[in-house]
Amino acid sequence: MLTHMDEKGRARMVEVGHKEETKRVAVARGSIQMDTVTLERIQEGKIAKGDVLAVAQVAGIMGAKKTSDLIPMCHNIFITGVDMDFIIDIPNNKIHIEAAVKTTGKTGVEMEALQAVSIAALTIYDMCKAIDKNMVISDIRLVKKTGGKSGIYMREGEAIDG
Amino acid sequence: MLTHMDEKGRARMVEVGHKEETKRVAVARGSIQMDTVTLERIQEGKIAKGDVLAVAQVAGIMGAKKTSDLIPMCHNIFITGVDMDFIIDIPNNKIHIEAAVKTTGKTGVEMEALQAVSIAALTIYDMCKAIDKNMVISDIRLVKKTGGKSGIYMREGEAIDG
Amino acid sequence: MLTHMDEKGRARMVEVGHKEETKRVAVARGSIQMDTVTLERIQEGKIAKGDVLAVAQVAGIMGAKKTSDLIPMCHNIFITGVDMDFIIDIPNNKIHIEAAVKTTGKTGVEMEALQAVSIAALTIYDMCKAIDKNMVISDIRLVKKTGGKSGIYMREGEAIDG
Amino acid sequence: MLTHMDEKGRARMVEVGHKEETKRVAVARGSIQMDTVTLERIQEGKIAKGDVLAVAQVAGIMGAKKTSDLIPMCHNIFITGVDMDFIIDIPNNKIHIEAAVKTTGKTGVEMEALQAVSIAALTIYDMCKAIDKNMVISDIRLVKKTGGKSGIYMREGEAIDG
Amino acid sequence: MLTHMDEKGRARMVEVGHKEETKRVAVARGSIQMDTVTLERIQEGKIAKGDVLAVAQVAGIMGAKKTSDLIPMCHNIFITGVDMDFIIDIPNNKIHIEAAVKTTGKTGVEMEALQAVSIAALTIYDMCKAIDKNMVISDIRLVKKTGGKSGIYMREGEAIDG
Amino acid sequence: MLTHMDEKGRARMVEVGHKEETKRVAVARGSIQMDTVTLERIQEGKIAKGDVLAVAQVAGIMGAKKTSDLIPMCHNIFITGVDMDFIIDIPNNKIHIEAAVKTTGKTGVEMEALQAVSIAALTIYDMCKAIDKNMVISDIRLVKKTGGKSGIYMREGEAIDG
Repeated sequence: MLTHMDEKGRARMVEVGHKEETKRVAVARGSIQMDTVTLERIQEGKIAKGDVLAVAQVAGIMGAKKTSDLIPMCHNIFITGVDMDFIIDIPNNKIHIEAAVKTTGKTGVEMEALQAVSIAALTIYDMCKAIDKNMVISDIRLVKKTGGKSGIYMREGEAIDG
Repeated sequence: MLTHMDEKGRARMVEVGHKEETKRVAVARGSIQMDTVTLERIQEGKIAKGDVLAVAQVAGIMGAKKTSDLIPMCHNIFITGVDMDFIIDIPNNKIHIEAAVKTTGKTGVEMEALQAVSIAALTIYDMCKAIDKNMVISDIRLVKKTGGKSGIYMREGEAIDG
Repeated sequence: MLTHMDEKGRARMVEVGHKEETKRVAVARGSIQMDTVTLERIQEGKIAKGDVLAVAQVAGIMGAKKTSDLIPMCHNIFITGVDMDFIIDIPNNKIHIEAAVKTTGKTGVEMEALQAVSIAALTIYDMCKAIDKNMVISDIRLVKKTGGKSGIYMREGEAIDG
Repeated sequence: MLTHMDEKGRARMVEVGHKEETKRVAVARGSIQMDTVTLERIQEGKIAKGDVLAVAQVAGIMGAKKTSDLIPMCHNIFITGVDMDFIIDIPNNKIHIEAAVKTTGKTGVEMEALQAVSIAALTIYDMCKAIDKNMVISDIRLVKKTGGKSGIYMREGEAIDG
Repeated sequence: MLTHMDEKGRARMVEVGHKEETKRVAVARGSIQMDTVTLERIQEGKIAKGDVLAVAQVAGIMGAKKTSDLIPMCHNIFITGVDMDFIIDIPNNKIHIEAAVKTTGKTGVEMEALQAVSIAALTIYDMCKAIDKNMVISDIRLVKKTGGKSGIYMREGEAIDG
Repeated sequence: MLTHMDEKGRARMVEVGHKEETKRVAVARGSIQMDTVTLERIQEGKIAKGDVLAVAQVAGIMGAKKTSDLIPMCHNIFITGVDMDFIIDIPNNKIHIEAAVKTTGKTGVEMEALQAVSIAALTIYDMCKAIDKNMVISDIRLVKKTGGKSGIYMREGEAIDG
């Protein structure tokens, strides 16, 4: 059963009071595809000190902290750390985005990691949309999750450090 | 040039005071892929009155209103209307999400439409993640944009009403 | 028909782009009932410079500005002014709360006025709950609405200035 | 003394650092009165899949999470669970709303429960106001509170499960 | 090294999961300078029950709770208490502002205390700007910090109670 | 009279519905003083691509958009543009911060400009506080304001472009 539904079939915020406080980590990834020219401008911008990815990184981290404000049934939790990384993939005209979120708490932080990736991707879109309206955000997914009763989740086929 | 960057290469919120107030519409789409079983549960849930998509719809609309709070260089604007739609695609194990956002103002609402789709997809993920951690959110893209100086944008290869 | 529902029966944020920008006012009222002793403490507090109602007034005004953030289908609008008033009603052990909200825009501000009254009442509850858990918030209602196509609404049986 | 006031009579956020972390539950209730016709439309809407109460439920749960953002002296806390329930009361032309909020923490969650009821009621008002401006929200009250030093509170004359 | 930067030189939210949960206090101060006339009006206002400082106090406390929402790399934490104080300094045409914030947690609350002082000062500015545009906010600083591994910090040359 | 006070001496959000919509600009400045070593680290960080000021710039712009959410009697408005600038002042061990905010609306944007400067300064403090607790934020002030009935304000003794 979808535990977010009560017996009447309505949504609820699932009780987690009985869950253990453990260290939990979630890693999510996604990508944004764009024109070659747009990707080059981002790279040039970076060299010239203007840095689309620096703004996206800040936006992703701040977005992670707002997850429970945006996702209705998501618990508000204390995030202990967030790391984001961007990889520019010239051959595929993509920027790959990764967010790793940590907590010590009663619920996992996969939504926070997915949210960080999603907001970072949308921020890149926003800052480049004047020159490219065809960008596509894809493959937003959980790649790793540790801590909690359900144990370790590793997405098949993903290269993951540590 | 990326207009979100000033001459020092730093980010700024681009001045739009000189732009005309016009009626503007933006339509964005995206999808979430999941296990057959998860998709079936969502459908059953709907029949039994519990409705993952009803929650996702509310979340998407509320998310659209918070766009400028999340995307750093995005202007806060008066949204005049939001419509969302979900199509369950059994053969492909996907739910397709569409958001249409309208405004009468000085800037477009493509970020609001993309944000609505993104938040709706993440809400579906959140409510189903207890039974499926392999879901993937993809193809978040602008499909149509009207109003403003740049005229009408229609994404190639998309079926769009109206 | 409930206009907040689309043809599939799902919620939407109703398009108001075609509506005229007019001056609009909404006045809402409500009350909170409490023990005689609690009411006396609030009054003493006021004399002694501590002022539960001053905090409630600030909370109500700030709450009005967050209405569209809280009520899912509510439009975000520019509020041009907010006035709040409190009347201590000793014979009935009540505090009556009134909020008048103004805008120049395409939608009415009744939700903002009702929200201001509601948040002010809850703030009073919060600040007095250590000594009184039996307080009851009641009669939150719209008493007056002007501006817009639907014209003037005056609730029957209410004494209203102006 | 009202503990929310310091010795100068000014408001403060009361220190709770010395309080024990215990499981705490608060249950609040309230109601909204409306025309028979409005109540029927809500019921029909539900049957036809459109569901005012589903939106109100989401809004109430999200509102509970924002309580400390709205009520000035309220502590921000980790909510472990929220359940909401609606009872349609045809003879009295009312919808009764109940919210049960749980936490494991240093402060009670009565404000969160009252906030959830209040926001749910306002959401119903918002979605029906086009056809009924006379709705009245009443009897927002705490009915049960457990956990913490002050022990169990049960409001007299209320039927409460568990 | 600035720990807010990762090895690529990008910003991150520093992991604090390994830190001990201890009682932590931070005290910050600042001041706002204004015309003699403005200061007199604030004092009169206070006597006449209108109270700029009461509004500033509420704003400062609410601002403290929003610190992690505003300061990008700041952790969201559970604040256990906030006290604010204002001293009117006639000879220097200043209002001195102090905020003391407490928590039991893994990170300090100096940012919350500094934020409270800053928002309180800006609120005073806002409420008086119609009669005085020359006000200056200065000397926002940490004066005391206890708890955590780094021990007690006391700013030199400050008179501090307790 | 302080217009933010009503006849009972309570705070209110002043009605601005009668004001003209004009182009309005506000420029604010402030500074943060720090140890020589801290200032050097920020500069090095910048060279090595890590950029405290890039984060502060994003925070300042996002903070400007939240002004009405933080300052109780402040109107929520449509900001048309924000520019921020930082000047590193080695001889005085300071970073000077400037924010220019523009709108087309019924109220000025001086609070938004002051808020942007304040949040940017606090962000610098947050990112450097691990190595320097003695930083002081000072001289937050309005330097220029144009548009609206009160005309042009230029602070005496300030060098201002344009």
